[in-house]
Amino acid sequence: MRVIFDEELKAVADDLDRMAQDVRKAIKGAGDALLNQDIEAAQTVIDGDIEIDALESSVIDQCVRLLAKQNPVATDLRVVVSTLRLAATFERMGDLAKHIAESARRTYPESPLPAEAKELFGEMVDFLNKTADRVVAMLQDRDTHTAEQIIIDDDVLDNLHHKTFELALSDGWTGTRQQLIDVVLIGRFLERLGDHAVSAARRVVYIVSGFDPSKEPARDENGAVE
Amino acid sequence: MRVIFDEELKAVADDLDRMAQDVRKAIKGAGDALLNQDIEAAQTVIDGDIEIDALESSVIDQCVRLLAKQNPVATDLRVVVSTLRLAATFERMGDLAKHIAESARRTYPESPLPAEAKELFGEMVDFLNKTADRVVAMLQDRDTHTAEQIIIDDDVLDNLHHKTFELALSDGWTGTRQQLIDVVLIGRFLERLGDHAVSAARRVVYIVSGFDPSKEPARDENGAVE
Repeated sequence: MRVIFDEELKAVADDLDRMAQDVRKAIKGAGDALLNQDIEAAQTVIDGDIEIDALESSVIDQCVRLLAKQNPVATDLRVVVSTLRLAATFERMGDLAKHIAESARRTYPESPLPAEAKELFGEMVDFLNKTADRVVAMLQDRDTHTAEQIIIDDDVLDNLHHKTFELALSDGWTGTRQQLIDVVLIGRFLERLGDHAVSAARRVVYIVSGFDPSKEPARDENGAVE
Repeated sequence: MRVIFDEELKAVADDLDRMAQDVRKAIKGAGDALLNQDIEAAQTVIDGDIEIDALESSVIDQCVRLLAKQNPVATDLRVVVSTLRLAATFERMGDLAKHIAESARRTYPESPLPAEAKELFGEMVDFLNKTADRVVAMLQDRDTHTAEQIIIDDDVLDNLHHKTFELALSDGWTGTRQQLIDVVLIGRFLERLGDHAVSAARRVVYIVSGFDPSKEPARDENGAVE
């Protein structure tokens, strides 16, 4: 029984790793589409989202089967329950990357962003590419140190996101109303990608330690303690 | 064993019902804050979000305990797994209502919306109040007919959301850049509330039928079949 359980748990963990890798690719592609008007990258992200959705369905099915047949307890149960939530988180990250790619496709061959916003969005994309690398590594090694770094560093992204509003309200803003709409929406999508990475990191901490850091006061997605 | 299981399942279902009722209250309050500059309503929504978060934690703990001790299968297992996801959905709906209330509090005693946007946002809020009533009823009765209505009617909200962009780009727009930012963000929060209601409806269909309508092609949050 234990051998079968371990094998099945390994299979679902592999699928979850694949989801994280696919999400990393989607974030990278969405960034290339946004910043370099890379229409092929945009289309690849948009088309690839179906695979992430299919992986989520497969992960859910495997988890439900594991719960029914193996009755896991303690750490094993935490792994299965957290896997369900991680799969939902990665599915959502895929959607957000897709939304960014769709914005870039819509305005192609122009960028959806005015020139003065590109540097700031470049910093956000760089940050998220690094975060996506960390998510993949954290998940493979169940590395709580990396998980904690993801949680702590999210403030950097929130600050960059805040600066997009300052820019949009400043005298230096030259964009159209459509560009302002896109800056607000794409900024929101990028910020939410960071929030979901934090949520994934919290799940990994929970798997390893049994402690749920989402019950800490600093829970709000803006990082504000209330 | 079965009696204990039924009692524990009833307790967690009651907590989930309470979450749905709290979310309905939060949506109502956020709408009042947004449309009538009701600062007390705004503050109540913001303060009340902690309760929704606490209920989510409690629901998760109860579900994990049920899975560990009772090893539910078939429909019972579907109920428990779906309850985990419903709790996450309602928690997120509480956050979104809170964000809207925070926008209203920030601009008080002014509205965050320019005058020409109020009617449209009023329609979105009315729609969501009706949807929240339906979510509560659907959950209590596990009523798939109401669930299907929620899923089908979400197009209405998406159309209203689309109109907010048309308004913001039209000659009739008189708002400031800050108001445009708020219209985009609040519009997005309202649209996402609708998406989460659809997700909750799909969970209820899954509980009752074992069929997961999220595997249908019409999965994207914009309702587009791709």
